[in-house]
Parts: sequence; C-alpha cells; structure tokens
Amino acid sequence: MSAKDRFHDAVKTGLIKEGWEITHDPLYLDFDNTQVKVDLAGEKLIAAERNLEKIAVEVNSFIAPSTIYEFYLAVGQGLSYRIALGQQEPERQLYLAVPIFIYQEFLRLTLAQKTIQEAKLSIILYEPDEEEIVQWIS
Amino acid sequence: MSAKDRFHDAVKTGLIKEGWEITHDPLYLDFDNTQVKVDLAGEKLIAAERNLEKIAVEVNSFIAPSTIYEFYLAVGQGLSYRIALGQQEPERQLYLAVPIFIYQEFLRLTLAQKTIQEAKLSIILYEPDEEEIVQWIS
Repeated sequence: MSAKDRFHDAVKTGLIKEGWEITHDPLYLDFDNTQVKVDLAGEKLIAAERNLEKIAVEVNSFIAPSTIYEFYLAVGQGLSYRIALGQQEPERQLYLAVPIFIYQEFLRLTLAQKTIQEAKLSIILYEPDEEEIVQWIS
Repeated sequence: MSAKDRFHDAVKTGLIKEGWEITHDPLYLDFDNTQVKVDLAGEKLIAAERNLEKIAVEVNSFIAPSTIYEFYLAVGQGLSYRIALGQQEPERQLYLAVPIFIYQEFLRLTLAQKTIQEAKLSIILYEPDEEEIVQWIS
C-alpha cells in the first residue's frame, strides 16, 4: 500500500470509529459537465454521512518534500472542490483532512492559519498511525 | 534560459513596455520573521511601480503537465502571498500573471472563474512570445 493510500485509509477508519458511514470512496465531482480531476491532483475525496450530516473529506497526506507547496495545493483544491460541491450537493460540507504532525509543525503558524481563515476552509486533524480523528476545526 | 525564466522575463518586459519600473526581482516576503519560501514553490514575485501605483506580480508559467494542478497551486500561493504582502506592504497590490493561452484553454471555464472570484485574486494575462501584457483583470 502506498503512503498516500495509508493516510487515506487512516482517515476513513477514523471517521468510521466516530460513527460515520462512508458512502463514496472516491466521490467524484462534476461541474459544468466537466469532471473535476481530483485524481490528477493526487488527492481523492471521501464522502460520509452520520445521522443527517453529510460531509466530503479531501485527504491531505503532506508526504511531499515541501510542506508549504502541498499546503498551497490543498488550499487551491479546497476552494475549487467547495465550489463544485456547492453546485452538486450544497448540503454536503467540505473538510480538508490534515495529519496532526503537520498541524503542529506548520499549520498552526500564523501565515497558514490566516490563509485557512481567508479561504474559509474547515479542517479535520487526524492521527495517521492510530487511525483516529483528533479534532474538527470549522 | 529555462522555460520558467523565459516566462518570468516575458512578464517583466511586458510591464516595462507599459511604463512600469521593476523595483525588485525577486521580491522576498517576510511574515512573522519567517521568509515566505516563494522559491521552494517555484514561482518568484516581481515588484513594480508606476507613478503612485505599486504592484507585486506572481508569474505563473503553467508549464507543468497538469494545468489544474498548477492552477490549484497558484490559487493557494496567491492567498498566502496576499496575506504576507498585506502585513509587509499593504499599499502594494498582488497580481497573478497567467499566459493568455492558459486563459483561453482553462482559466475562462466556469470552475476556474468561480475559484478566482472566491479567492478574490487579480490577474494579469500576458503573451509570452510577444512579451506583452494583454489584459488586467481585477
């Protein structure tokens, strides 16, 4: 299993432990009849439901050599995915899943925090080895 | 000269033709004492002035195989750079410079347009071979 797949599965397992049902893996987004090529950018979306809540989760592994490069990419993807999702399924909320160690090393720094606020992105922090969701930040 | 440098120089020449003076190449951004590593992400900023106007220009070449991947990256960079610039030099306006052929192929599509609007990014379209600025979109 690739490192990327391992992180992807850790988020899925973490969500299931919290009572979510995985309904789509991957979730494909269509927009103006053009399928958003989430695969090309390397990060797939997971869709999950719990009671009346519906979410889509973009799993970011941050395994590339440059954390800031992956961060910029995740922010750009997050904006586009939210727009596409808003057209397709406006009731489903988008989250970016980020490993907890990336939060501690980079994401809690002011520039990253302000960028996330500016982009109005919601975040799930997860622990990849324990396969657990640590925190939801909306 | 690398393809990336060629695009970078085309934007510079285009700005000079329009009466701008290039004041910094590259312009480095500092934020909370952490230099924003624009070099790591591969796109350098140019600073220019004309009369009382001051701009910073992030030159995007879109020479990577995946246009949408570069687009996501440019959007994420644009948000972070604008925040860092707002702290350092609030009077200087940020523009993303994009080759005109990328606009025609991709950037004018609805998903890209809506993402740019959501991110409130200003765009300069440039013609890389003619080394000319084609359009300013704020």
